[in-house]
Amino acid sequence: MAVPSPGYSITLRVQTPVNFTVTSELAAAAGAAGAAVTALDVTESTHEHLVVDISCNTTDVEHSEKVRQALEALEGVTVRKVSDRTFLMHLGGKLEVVPKVPLRNRDDLSRAYTPGVARVCQAIAANPEDARRLTVKRNTIAVVTDGSAVLGLGNIGPAAALPVMEGKAALFKQFAGVDAWPVCLDTQDTEEIISIVKALAPVYGGVNLEDIAAPRCFEIESRLREELDIPVFHDDQHGTAIVTLAALQNALKVVNKKIEDVKIVVAGVGAAGNAIIQLLKAQGALNIVACGRSGAINRNETYTDAHRVWLAANTNPENFAGTLHEAVAGADVFIGVSGPNVLGEAQVASMAEDAIVFAMANPDPEVDPVIAAKYAAVVATGRSDFPNQINNVLAFPGFFRGLLDAGAADITDAMLVAAAEAIARRVSEEELNASFIIPSVFDPHVASEVAAAVAAAAPRNH
Amino acid sequence: MAVPSPGYSITLRVQTPVNFTVTSELAAAAGAAGAAVTALDVTESTHEHLVVDISCNTTDVEHSEKVRQALEALEGVTVRKVSDRTFLMHLGGKLEVVPKVPLRNRDDLSRAYTPGVARVCQAIAANPEDARRLTVKRNTIAVVTDGSAVLGLGNIGPAAALPVMEGKAALFKQFAGVDAWPVCLDTQDTEEIISIVKALAPVYGGVNLEDIAAPRCFEIESRLREELDIPVFHDDQHGTAIVTLAALQNALKVVNKKIEDVKIVVAGVGAAGNAIIQLLKAQGALNIVACGRSGAINRNETYTDAHRVWLAANTNPENFAGTLHEAVAGADVFIGVSGPNVLGEAQVASMAEDAIVFAMANPDPEVDPVIAAKYAAVVATGRSDFPNQINNVLAFPGFFRGLLDAGAADITDAMLVAAAEAIARRVSEEELNASFIIPSVFDPHVASEVAAAVAAAAPRNH
Repeated sequence: MAVPSPGYSITLRVQTPVNFTVTSELAAAAGAAGAAVTALDVTESTHEHLVVDISCNTTDVEHSEKVRQALEALEGVTVRKVSDRTFLMHLGGKLEVVPKVPLRNRDDLSRAYTPGVARVCQAIAANPEDARRLTVKRNTIAVVTDGSAVLGLGNIGPAAALPVMEGKAALFKQFAGVDAWPVCLDTQDTEEIISIVKALAPVYGGVNLEDIAAPRCFEIESRLREELDIPVFHDDQHGTAIVTLAALQNALKVVNKKIEDVKIVVAGVGAAGNAIIQLLKAQGALNIVACGRSGAINRNETYTDAHRVWLAANTNPENFAGTLHEAVAGADVFIGVSGPNVLGEAQVASMAEDAIVFAMANPDPEVDPVIAAKYAAVVATGRSDFPNQINNVLAFPGFFRGLLDAGAADITDAMLVAAAEAIARRVSEEELNASFIIPSVFDPHVASEVAAAVAAAAPRNH
Repeated sequence: MAVPSPGYSITLRVQTPVNFTVTSELAAAAGAAGAAVTALDVTESTHEHLVVDISCNTTDVEHSEKVRQALEALEGVTVRKVSDRTFLMHLGGKLEVVPKVPLRNRDDLSRAYTPGVARVCQAIAANPEDARRLTVKRNTIAVVTDGSAVLGLGNIGPAAALPVMEGKAALFKQFAGVDAWPVCLDTQDTEEIISIVKALAPVYGGVNLEDIAAPRCFEIESRLREELDIPVFHDDQHGTAIVTLAALQNALKVVNKKIEDVKIVVAGVGAAGNAIIQLLKAQGALNIVACGRSGAINRNETYTDAHRVWLAANTNPENFAGTLHEAVAGADVFIGVSGPNVLGEAQVASMAEDAIVFAMANPDPEVDPVIAAKYAAVVATGRSDFPNQINNVLAFPGFFRGLLDAGAADITDAMLVAAAEAIARRVSEEELNASFIIPSVFDPHVASEVAAAVAAAAPRNH
């Protein structure tokens, strides 16, 4: 399923002879080599030659090289330079820390810094709650990772995780005006992570845990929720659960089924799977079968980890024991948060009438969505190149906007459900169909409506 | 010495009768009450009344109230509201985290975030040094405090310290384009602070320690310098030492003395005092007497803390034992980094001909600078309302700019001296006189010249 992607976008700076048809020949050659041309600019022109910047999406590094060779093969054409547009975008980092106050003269300095700032410090020392009014705590959250489960890349460590955390912080600001700061910790010790995040808390109004491996992430999250007075959200769990529930609510409308009636099979019992199951249960789902690598979690087995023990006790009402493939037979809903290609065509075909398939593994889904769509009524993935992208960007910016606006100290199931419903409502009755169960991540109203719903659902702390 | 200060600037919103002379009457009344009027705006006008915003500097909260009463006492005048301009400036915090990359559409998202970001992560995982090229580490430092010695306010804790750290971060950006982030730690345990800063290091290209009490600050700084591969700077030590050395170099030129010939008395053996003494020695000073609360550090006494032991062995060549008052008799230079009013008129009078007095305690200097100037040839303070303000803002932004530009891993004495000399050079031979030994903090060339000097003095790591 390799298609040219903006993640592999390159710009080739090409010198060509002066020729009326040269730009179209360049575009044609790049296209023939499998690239998707996105821009073409003549940047220099003399009597002897033109210099043309041609930007195109490719599938990977090897493909980029083939495109270069294809252009070089044209008569009189030289490729001067190939720039990787993704790397260019990340050069020097993606965030900056900008003063909101003027510091042009002595008076500004005297108010923003010494001596004036001393009075602000004293006000907070006298009344600690004033920190939410007089400091960045009002609008700032920490995006915390230990680099142990970054995207699909695994345990690449805190330095290599930083580009993701910067990107996440950029999204928080762009979509919801939340100031977010990356905290990439050079430790993977649970207790140390907990004590560090607690020590950092004075600066932040919330904590977003990110890309921390299970089961460590569960312990870190639950302990921090207990021990901190600011809300703690693990996006891989709760962000995914919110958007999945939103998509499922609309998908069930499309097929005219009710959540309490359907059989739901969840593949993957890591961070996301557990959170999804808990939220679906909170919304009334009664028949959920959770499948790990060794098949359905059931009450015949003895589990050592607390989450599997909980799943065995609280899901799988028929106590089904068997493989994932056996579990999906007759199921109404498949939710995959596991890995690539765990289902084949036969398994999707074995599902109930009007089946719903959410194959969310990234970049390669649990089942080819094109094949799934031959049998299922609604198919969604985590990818942007198919309809129905289940993307956490729909949830986390607005969710934290709501938390900060409410001055919330905790996160409740009611707030998660409120966020899911706000997202689901952004698809109107007129728009709703099997290929549009979830709004676009660029829908400008999602974040503010999620924020309002979350703030309204928050207990009144302030 | 209470004078109206912009740190106590207020804006009074006043309703007055319509009257040609009303604004001048308001200004006169505020002035008569001791306020320094800085702005006056008519914000609303009807046939019946005017609304006037009058901004003025006051000395403190009680004075602000007196000014309000003075305006209320005028015929027909009502004060609707008094706003504290300092608090207004701090509302909601003084920093924001802003994306440097566009996130307008799917292509932007694919490059800045998933899937494109994965390649950037992989590049850093393969070559960790790439973090300095492809992430915020390139240009970002941590401003770390435990809130134990904030300004002159003492141990007010990490939350109350945040307004200062935000201000510091704002100055870093404004003066030198350095992205700085406040890290206010909710612990005052030395080992815990060290291990936390080490764990945070992947995101940062440098660490600025700030307002951490002595002697803890020494241990934290020296351990972090050993154990981290990014530079660690304690502004209360090294920033102060740099600017003090710069000022002293120029002051010695004014009085035509040489650093190796003068007797220097330093009052205060905390963070600043120790760093100043070390740097003065590195610059050739031979006769330094360090005074703590119990008088001159000397070799007749037995000290338990390592810094006093070092001072006893490495200063005070004549092994003078006695009080600070006795020590300054005949001294050429007094450098105060201690507390208010430790010297009186008699002590300044007892100093050598063409004495130099740096009374840097804030807000109240070691000796009234007006009195000191009756005897000393050059007087400097930490205050902006007297000539010769010795202000760390002259050093730290440019210093870190230089560190980041050079990709420096360590800080050497040569770099501190280079910074001091760059600051001193900003006062030209023509400008140099007893009232102008140090450039203005708003001199737009200081930071870039300090940066260039520091980068040039840095060992080549990259």
